[in-house]
Amino acid sequence: MAYNNNKNKGTKINPDLVREREKCTFRIEELTNYIDGSQEATAERHAREQYFLDDPSLRPSDVPSEYLSHKEKYEEAIRMSVALFRRVKQLQNEKGGAVDNYRQVLGGSLGPALLADGNPLGLHYVMFLPTILGQGTLEQTAEWVQKAWNLNIIGTYAQTELGHGTFIRGLETTATYDEKTEEFVLNSPTLTSYKWWPGGLGHASNYAVVIAQLYTQGKCHGIHPFIVQLRDEETNMPLRGIKIGEIGCKLGMNVTNNGYLGFDNVRIPRNHMLMKNNKVLKDGTYIKAPSSKLTYGTMIFVRVVIVEDAAQYLKKAVIIATRYSAVRRQSQIKEGEPETQIIDFVTQQYKLFPLIATFFAYYHSAKWLWNLYNQITGEMEGGQLDRLPELHAIACCLKAVSTADCSAGVETCRLACGGHGYMISSNLPTTYGLVTAACTYEGENTVLLLQTARYLVKSYQAFLDGQKLTPTVSYIEKYKNVSTPPFQKRVEWIIQALEKVAACKIEKAYNNIQRRVKKGLAYEHAWNETSVELASAADMHCRANVLAIFQDKVQSSKPTLSKELGVVLQQLLELYSVFIAIRFSGDLLRYTNTIGHDISELQAWLEDLLACIRPNALGIIDGFDMRDEVVRSTLGSYDGNVYERLFIEAQKSPLNQEPVNQSFHKHLKPFLQSNM
Amino acid sequence: MAYNNNKNKGTKINPDLVREREKCTFRIEELTNYIDGSQEATAERHAREQYFLDDPSLRPSDVPSEYLSHKEKYEEAIRMSVALFRRVKQLQNEKGGAVDNYRQVLGGSLGPALLADGNPLGLHYVMFLPTILGQGTLEQTAEWVQKAWNLNIIGTYAQTELGHGTFIRGLETTATYDEKTEEFVLNSPTLTSYKWWPGGLGHASNYAVVIAQLYTQGKCHGIHPFIVQLRDEETNMPLRGIKIGEIGCKLGMNVTNNGYLGFDNVRIPRNHMLMKNNKVLKDGTYIKAPSSKLTYGTMIFVRVVIVEDAAQYLKKAVIIATRYSAVRRQSQIKEGEPETQIIDFVTQQYKLFPLIATFFAYYHSAKWLWNLYNQITGEMEGGQLDRLPELHAIACCLKAVSTADCSAGVETCRLACGGHGYMISSNLPTTYGLVTAACTYEGENTVLLLQTARYLVKSYQAFLDGQKLTPTVSYIEKYKNVSTPPFQKRVEWIIQALEKVAACKIEKAYNNIQRRVKKGLAYEHAWNETSVELASAADMHCRANVLAIFQDKVQSSKPTLSKELGVVLQQLLELYSVFIAIRFSGDLLRYTNTIGHDISELQAWLEDLLACIRPNALGIIDGFDMRDEVVRSTLGSYDGNVYERLFIEAQKSPLNQEPVNQSFHKHLKPFLQSNM
Repeated sequence: MAYNNNKNKGTKINPDLVREREKCTFRIEELTNYIDGSQEATAERHAREQYFLDDPSLRPSDVPSEYLSHKEKYEEAIRMSVALFRRVKQLQNEKGGAVDNYRQVLGGSLGPALLADGNPLGLHYVMFLPTILGQGTLEQTAEWVQKAWNLNIIGTYAQTELGHGTFIRGLETTATYDEKTEEFVLNSPTLTSYKWWPGGLGHASNYAVVIAQLYTQGKCHGIHPFIVQLRDEETNMPLRGIKIGEIGCKLGMNVTNNGYLGFDNVRIPRNHMLMKNNKVLKDGTYIKAPSSKLTYGTMIFVRVVIVEDAAQYLKKAVIIATRYSAVRRQSQIKEGEPETQIIDFVTQQYKLFPLIATFFAYYHSAKWLWNLYNQITGEMEGGQLDRLPELHAIACCLKAVSTADCSAGVETCRLACGGHGYMISSNLPTTYGLVTAACTYEGENTVLLLQTARYLVKSYQAFLDGQKLTPTVSYIEKYKNVSTPPFQKRVEWIIQALEKVAACKIEKAYNNIQRRVKKGLAYEHAWNETSVELASAADMHCRANVLAIFQDKVQSSKPTLSKELGVVLQQLLELYSVFIAIRFSGDLLRYTNTIGHDISELQAWLEDLLACIRPNALGIIDGFDMRDEVVRSTLGSYDGNVYERLFIEAQKSPLNQEPVNQSFHKHLKPFLQSNM
Repeated sequence: MAYNNNKNKGTKINPDLVREREKCTFRIEELTNYIDGSQEATAERHAREQYFLDDPSLRPSDVPSEYLSHKEKYEEAIRMSVALFRRVKQLQNEKGGAVDNYRQVLGGSLGPALLADGNPLGLHYVMFLPTILGQGTLEQTAEWVQKAWNLNIIGTYAQTELGHGTFIRGLETTATYDEKTEEFVLNSPTLTSYKWWPGGLGHASNYAVVIAQLYTQGKCHGIHPFIVQLRDEETNMPLRGIKIGEIGCKLGMNVTNNGYLGFDNVRIPRNHMLMKNNKVLKDGTYIKAPSSKLTYGTMIFVRVVIVEDAAQYLKKAVIIATRYSAVRRQSQIKEGEPETQIIDFVTQQYKLFPLIATFFAYYHSAKWLWNLYNQITGEMEGGQLDRLPELHAIACCLKAVSTADCSAGVETCRLACGGHGYMISSNLPTTYGLVTAACTYEGENTVLLLQTARYLVKSYQAFLDGQKLTPTVSYIEKYKNVSTPPFQKRVEWIIQALEKVAACKIEKAYNNIQRRVKKGLAYEHAWNETSVELASAADMHCRANVLAIFQDKVQSSKPTLSKELGVVLQQLLELYSVFIAIRFSGDLLRYTNTIGHDISELQAWLEDLLACIRPNALGIIDGFDMRDEVVRSTLGSYDGNVYERLFIEAQKSPLNQEPVNQSFHKHLKPFLQSNM
């Protein structure tokens, strides 16, 4: 029954896990294939994992990096990422390169398996190359993509400044065109104009795409991208006028070498401005591109990637917490019985199983969003731009809601492991550091929810004006004057209820804006005063969509699946839906025909589902098929030898390499003896 | 108007903060005195802060510790904590010692000001000394307290093992009495029996109180405390049979030197068992103490301290996030207007202001609990033990709910600071590391809620049996057959509503246990199956009490306060109550006479309160009167020079001390050039 992609197949398996695996009612490999998309996709992933994880040059070093100094961590990360890029290049030469390869190797689940706390060179592939590809002219692309693709140079992407993140129109870095020399002159006029945050900017990159306010012929034309050389290719010394360094330690991602960058009259040739869209001619004439929507694409792409990454982090956390909960025995439910596997405490199931289901919800949403993205960007290449706002709106809220939920979920998993979850060797703290970062980068979550809300309010106006709505908001039409049916114990009913709630929240927010405008407030101030409700409407809009996507996926897959796996997926779908319904029971009671007793029914349904999932819990997370090198956790390995691993990891601490630390002789002993 | 306890009074204040302070409607110093308890208490605190913070030997070193290696961090922490203990001893000699001094210096707000990420010697005062005082005989106390109090030795407290935390009856370490030599022989029979987690155990302590299963005359008598010497006082070498080291890196508190400890036939004299309660005679005869409740006291004491510490961490976080939100300007609410202070976005107010109010709620609850603790332990000394269960029940849930809420609150503050909150220099990540640890130590939160639930179910049974209930659960009597009045816009109404909800939840859980027992389940299994509801009932029981305590405190203080401050405190009280009511709107709708429209009223009330508090927000957090050395944040200093401080802090990174890192020559350059 057991299915195990792990290398250490020989090790003794914890007997509790053996028993758990015997209980599983479905074929684990089938679940793995379902998640990967097909048997072939699983095989492909295995091959990729093998290619990287079995390479001795990519083994983590003997002293775990958390024990090193900040500087040593960086140096070790550079060693590892160079080895990794060498391997990526080799793969590229052998099998041809595809963006998906880099995505899997730098992000997804493989990225943190190889470099646990980030990659100092990651933005080279994730931002530098794509920006040049997306915004360079043919000649620029030919020149720079070649250098970047061949890894002759390392680039990053410098947009955010100390004083500006969300509001990019407010960026202060200037690029002033000097027609006499046909150069742009870059300057950082204030402290707040210093670039701040770009990964790899501190010391690792020698080039960057820099976003700056363009001035030509005495006029400002707004922000534009420029390729700027930062450091000498031979010596790595910062070029003249470049003030550069790293920004310091962070909650996580401490090897990503996030940097700052100031300019003091730095000159770059005219053809270093990326001119696929807007152009500056030799004499300084500025020519504006017909549409600014063309640059939207990469921003949305990054958010699509974040949703899947968030789901991956949550997946890892539930693997760790579920395996640990099956191995850990603590207390006796009943005196005289053996100590209980903590997974048998219903409060523990209540913490973990809904999160297993939440992984599926966001994972399916991420795949769905990826397909939508490809479909709509395909349409865009044909000149059709009308579905872009809907894509943007759903990507914004999905990024916000998935990162918020998955971050909270990772923490729930950590806390569910008690004190041992607090150990770095559990890999839960580091995973939290990675996933929570996504709540504020690439669009702060509240800001993103309010962007979605803008689309919802527009849609509601369109609905009032009698226009047809786009698919993701079509529920507004459905529920405007229709109440939901009384409670039924079906996922469909919960979807209806969430859609009704979302529709009511949008209507209510819309009306409150109108009410405030009528009172004399400017629309923008009315918007701000209504923003708590607006954000909440966008949140519910997202949840209604996520649940509908999950439902569609399970129902459409069932015919191709074994009955056994179909049952399990249905249970997970139901669990997720009930979990969300209870979480938002206040909204259900307020906006739908739900009554108090229905909430008791939902609670009983949820408890039934916990009991149904219990025997398959280990099977499900085994089916996630993460190799131990990817899970990287003392608490979450396939063999369940939790205590042995905790002990072995502790022995790696440099403090444990000597029986007595020098601080005893230097500080403690003189003090203690002075008190005698 | 401005009131500033900070040293750097000379620095230029950010003009936005100057304006904010001018808006404040109350006298800030009055709020400070209110929080401290009196003008004299404020002066005393100032003197203590001055004593420690102005001492040059206690200045943090130039390179912030986050840049050091794990080993260097430990060594630096030993240097600092020895300097600190030296200063504490000096104070003790000058002014006499009081436990409160150590509590303030090691925990509270001063502890993390001096040692940001924990104190490797902290348990000496917090656990080692109190355990000997509480459980030693007169002779033992005379011998050991002298050595410990004089700091001739450093001790820790070793209870938790790799395999057992919550379930202390399951501890595996054995102490077997050998009547021939009149010694106990300590052993660690399994890997899981290794002590694991005690602070300072790794390398810093040379003594420990060890909890072990006592065997005499072939019989096990359960767990007992023993004083064990771990390391040689001259050389610090581990004694024979002692296997010891540190457990490795953690999410936070990385200098607390948490350790592991195994015993291989370690012999200690008979009088090293702490025998105030139970005794072992020379011949091995075991004599049991009359009551085991005597040892309850310290456990409850520690939880009382945790509630106040949790509130202190939240206080620090809201200071940081509120000051930053007043300085940070981002986006324009309306085009053409200057960029907005982000504190003017209602979504930001919605995140921060309820947390300011939450600090007051838990701070007052902590003070209330401290008084109750003193009152009841006073009664206990008179032999009256009957109020102990109530104290235990309320301490358990208050510890659980306050640490959960304050941890989540600190994270909300961090995320409200956007990317900059992710910087260690903001001090928000480190603060989170400290506060979240309290969710799992000294009683895992869910376990504690279920302990409270046990008391609630017993109380409900007592109520059914016609007995009079204790004060903290007396609401059960009040609401059994009485419904709450319709919504009123008053705090009193919300207290009634929460009490009604708590009473209903207790009743429902009680009935569900009975129902399951009738179905044939053993009581303990019925309990487990009902545990999600039980934990939720305990949570609501806690919240109803916290709100009532907050209300009492504000109403009883008002007559002694200026009208202006009274108004502000009333607003904070109302904000907290409305915030909780909305958070639990599902429960209100389900269990009370609340209807959907009332929730809209609550929402409108909350938004009004945000607007009321807005002009005083800075004044309130200034009134918290935390010196910059305590806040330790680039984002939260009194002068608001956020960007300057971020930049200055970044310059301290060792990576920034050289323009080119050696890894360029070693790894990057050879790779980039090989691709040419």
